[in-house]
Amino acid sequence: MSLNIQSEIDIMKVASSKINEVDFENLTFGNVFTDHMLVCDFKEGAWQKPAIKPYEPFLLDPSAKVFHYGQAIFEGMKAYKTEDDSVWLFRPDENYIRFNKSAERMCMPEVPESVFLDGLKELLKIEKDWVKKGKGNTLYIRPFMIAIGSGVVAQPSTQYRFMIILSPARAYYSGEVKVLVADYYSRAANGGIGAAKAAGNYSGQFYPTKLANEQGFQQVIWTDDSTHTKLEEAGTMNVFFRINDTLYTAPTSERILDGVTRKSLIDLAKREGIHVDVRPVLVSELVEGAKNGTLKEIFGAGTAAVVNPIVGFSYQDTYYELPKIENSMALALKEKLTNIQYKLAEDTFGWTVKV
Amino acid sequence: MSLNIQSEIDIMKVASSKINEVDFENLTFGNVFTDHMLVCDFKEGAWQKPAIKPYEPFLLDPSAKVFHYGQAIFEGMKAYKTEDDSVWLFRPDENYIRFNKSAERMCMPEVPESVFLDGLKELLKIEKDWVKKGKGNTLYIRPFMIAIGSGVVAQPSTQYRFMIILSPARAYYSGEVKVLVADYYSRAANGGIGAAKAAGNYSGQFYPTKLANEQGFQQVIWTDDSTHTKLEEAGTMNVFFRINDTLYTAPTSERILDGVTRKSLIDLAKREGIHVDVRPVLVSELVEGAKNGTLKEIFGAGTAAVVNPIVGFSYQDTYYELPKIENSMALALKEKLTNIQYKLAEDTFGWTVKV
Repeated sequence: MSLNIQSEIDIMKVASSKINEVDFENLTFGNVFTDHMLVCDFKEGAWQKPAIKPYEPFLLDPSAKVFHYGQAIFEGMKAYKTEDDSVWLFRPDENYIRFNKSAERMCMPEVPESVFLDGLKELLKIEKDWVKKGKGNTLYIRPFMIAIGSGVVAQPSTQYRFMIILSPARAYYSGEVKVLVADYYSRAANGGIGAAKAAGNYSGQFYPTKLANEQGFQQVIWTDDSTHTKLEEAGTMNVFFRINDTLYTAPTSERILDGVTRKSLIDLAKREGIHVDVRPVLVSELVEGAKNGTLKEIFGAGTAAVVNPIVGFSYQDTYYELPKIENSMALALKEKLTNIQYKLAEDTFGWTVKV
Repeated sequence: MSLNIQSEIDIMKVASSKINEVDFENLTFGNVFTDHMLVCDFKEGAWQKPAIKPYEPFLLDPSAKVFHYGQAIFEGMKAYKTEDDSVWLFRPDENYIRFNKSAERMCMPEVPESVFLDGLKELLKIEKDWVKKGKGNTLYIRPFMIAIGSGVVAQPSTQYRFMIILSPARAYYSGEVKVLVADYYSRAANGGIGAAKAAGNYSGQFYPTKLANEQGFQQVIWTDDSTHTKLEEAGTMNVFFRINDTLYTAPTSERILDGVTRKSLIDLAKREGIHVDVRPVLVSELVEGAKNGTLKEIFGAGTAAVVNPIVGFSYQDTYYELPKIENSMALALKEKLTNIQYKLAEDTFGWTVKV
């Protein structure tokens, strides 16, 4: 399928690239896009021929279902460039599989591998100059699908658009991150869509996060909505806790995203001989650990930020500051993971894929 | 504020109306739109001047936040025409207030009354020929707001678009409606966005509803996600149960939409001397009532369908058919409510508003 792929994608290139207008040293995350995008429409029960074309706005009917019923999913991935100018992806199959799981849950059509993965590789070949060398530099990849069929009736669309857009990026978060542990608001229901990368999961977090911001916290650690006793995710990331020398993280579920960074960190930690305990983690354990000094670290894990250390948390109006430590597992694991991503360490797991 | 409103809205009319191309006797819900729409953009912290202009597609950037994070809300309302050719709205203030509650929960800006209500009235004056006389004929009104700011970073947008589009309609549902009582899937979390008319609440229902459809059920009755023992909504409607001669419906909450039809039916029923008990209703009560014959009726209540009688329900693989009854409360209340809406009965509540 990936043989002679160019004949299966319409390619329309820009007359002149805007790459020289971009200040790659001062990028804010997700705001600058490359010259081209991949577009593939689904209609009359079938995916149409994909096209790589200039990045530009497109027309939608005011009654498009994405506007009214939120039928929309996405993925987050990155491309990395090594010193020999080759471009690499990290576990792209995982994102492809998860994308189609999200599609199923949101009643959207499965996207073929030839469109998602081969199309992405073709797009990256055209945009290879946008992937900059040097650790920390990445090209953030945003595959997404929206319902473009018209009609204000709450039923699945019959028409969809799959797109891939690319944004050069450096780090996602900066500064010290303090978090608020949720005791009222929630991000996901049992039997809901929390495990899908569905658009509606994200906007629902904006208001509780704004309230946390107003209290001086950058993110919210979400808890289960039934009891608010179990720790689930941190902002839009999976979350890890280090108590003494053991790493804890919640099992994935219908409420918790099966994060690629999360599962990679678990494998890496195990290889390093770190004991990883995947089980529900209680808020009370967090508070107890903070009080008796056994809670050493908390960190978020996700594609955009990779690893995001958290310096303290607030729960029910009490703030718990974590100790400053010498040997951070979060930073050590981040170093090991990014070394694999940038081909600076041997990829014993076979996670990296050359474009 | 509503004085001299025309000077506050830019009005661009179509060259010629498409109304003569529309078969008003054979409308499918939500698929035909009138000649004009209202558009008002929010940017740089302020609402811009609204415009009434030809209904047409509009351009959005591929990174528009509505596509990625689902920041999108809507309302559903109707306009009615009486024999004297006047056009009426039903409790529009309720929709306006709820719209702004949804906006707050989704971290979107409040829409001014001058844009939402005065703008709607102005639009309806221009489109008055699209509102047809005769009970059952309505003009469905869809105000909505989407995040149009660009950038693939999970933060609230700084730019929004508020729009009102209009769709001539007859009935929403047809045929006998059988429902499946959810025992696994859910529509809303505690501390989530279930009470908001947020886009993401609707697409999350599509897959469980599809599974129900495949088993021969048209809709799902949602239960609380923590225990699946409490009845919450039916499809996209509030739900009522009649046990003997008492009507039961769940109290509104952060999980249950505060429906305008729901609250109107409660008031109407009380005026008719019907005992209405607003309290959590258990699945076990429903099953017990079906078994001992005390469960007389189930019906959904919402703007689109008004009242939607349900003929039977399935719970954990057992199907319970409701008795055929002579004096349906659902149909009697629907008749009374629509008579008020169409000005065929005295509006003692002061619910109707002339355009």
